[in-house]
Amino acid sequence: MEQKLILITNDDGVSAQGIAVLTELMLQLGDVVVVAPDSARSGAACAITCTQAVTLRRRADMERPHLMVYACSGSPVDCVKIALEQVCPRQPDLIVSGINHGDNASWSIHYSGTMGAVIEGCMKGIPSVGFSLRTLSHHCDFSPYSNEIVRIADFVLRNGLLQDVCLNVNFPEVARLAGMRVCRMCRGRWVQEWISANNPRGMNAFWLTGRFLNLEPHSEDTDYWALDHGYGAITPIKLDMTAYEVFDKLAILGNPSRPTKS
Amino acid sequence: MEQKLILITNDDGVSAQGIAVLTELMLQLGDVVVVAPDSARSGAACAITCTQAVTLRRRADMERPHLMVYACSGSPVDCVKIALEQVCPRQPDLIVSGINHGDNASWSIHYSGTMGAVIEGCMKGIPSVGFSLRTLSHHCDFSPYSNEIVRIADFVLRNGLLQDVCLNVNFPEVARLAGMRVCRMCRGRWVQEWISANNPRGMNAFWLTGRFLNLEPHSEDTDYWALDHGYGAITPIKLDMTAYEVFDKLAILGNPSRPTKS
Repeated sequence: MEQKLILITNDDGVSAQGIAVLTELMLQLGDVVVVAPDSARSGAACAITCTQAVTLRRRADMERPHLMVYACSGSPVDCVKIALEQVCPRQPDLIVSGINHGDNASWSIHYSGTMGAVIEGCMKGIPSVGFSLRTLSHHCDFSPYSNEIVRIADFVLRNGLLQDVCLNVNFPEVARLAGMRVCRMCRGRWVQEWISANNPRGMNAFWLTGRFLNLEPHSEDTDYWALDHGYGAITPIKLDMTAYEVFDKLAILGNPSRPTKS
Repeated sequence: MEQKLILITNDDGVSAQGIAVLTELMLQLGDVVVVAPDSARSGAACAITCTQAVTLRRRADMERPHLMVYACSGSPVDCVKIALEQVCPRQPDLIVSGINHGDNASWSIHYSGTMGAVIEGCMKGIPSVGFSLRTLSHHCDFSPYSNEIVRIADFVLRNGLLQDVCLNVNFPEVARLAGMRVCRMCRGRWVQEWISANNPRGMNAFWLTGRFLNLEPHSEDTDYWALDHGYGAITPIKLDMTAYEVFDKLAILGNPSRPTKS
């Protein structure tokens, strides 16, 4: 039987530690193709490159000359798109993204390039999972999460995921996980986001920074709560963002086309 | 009574025709602040700028010297973030984004910088609406949609929107709208997305292009169907992307933290 094919990408760039670790782990489960940004694309969300051509370069892997590793000048979403059409020898059975240095819990998923790639994979009908670690370090110990990453990827390879649903998996930085929890997205936003940048030309220039504000710190069923309490968080994410619950309130604005969920 | 304050942004850039038209229309409803990208940011999604400082420059508006118009070097989401902290004299009562040249219906919302700004406004707790026109032209006649744009913005100014819900409004390019419909997001993806870019250095280089594939062309309750049939489409969008319906299926992966919707 043909080996399973796993496409790997990330948003920290092809040279990041997290994607090297993820590649090692996925090689336990099947054939691997890596197509990742040529440098860091943090905060790339689902961005695509419309205004310039995207380049793709094969990188030599001295230890594994047969491993297909490509650096792409585009965003994480571009990486998935170009991998599927221009690189992969067949349709992947699984797309994994990460391991991101920094968590993508709560509403931060909307900004996440890691999850942008996962959402793109999901749009293409391929089971897709993002992995992120709540850390500020570029070099960290991923070993406490290895077993869970392999277990989750193996589960998805065997069982697939429901149509139009992907997974957002986040880990806290701990020596030993308290366990894994299936969670919902926490409500939470960033505040106090700009600091003035000194510059020699008198322009108004600012650096994006900020502090995360958990809007429901006492809810125990959220991804953020899980991370705060030492658990890994598995949050199933769907492509359909329609707010069906407000259709009635909006009837005054438009002919109510009574919706049926797809 | 103090005038309502409306923040305007877009992803086609501060010089685009669509934002000029939107500014004219919003001046009928209140005070206006414009903070928009200094050039086109199509496909920016919810991207944020993490790796460089963002600049902000006031632009002179010869016709209206008191109108506050700023060009920002960042993404549409950056524009909203920086407008709220560094530009607006008070919290806006409404954020509008657009009018985008090109539709943002179906799953294309995930790539949309227009809707990225709207999602950001929604995260900040401000009623937010995106307007897009299905057109390929940089110069088009927005007059068939003016009344609807003012009516929708006025409705949202008066009534607000449900917490964590924003609106995605798309128009077809028609001389006269068949009507307005409240719709769900259509299922649909882009296919055949890359063409090889000729280049003199022998690199693998590609341009992103593609063809939209409607995965449910016969469903009459979608935004895409509405546009195809001459209707304006109002799609309510929510921040919470959690797929609650798959929690049971994932119980094997993690301690089932029985969720309650927030």
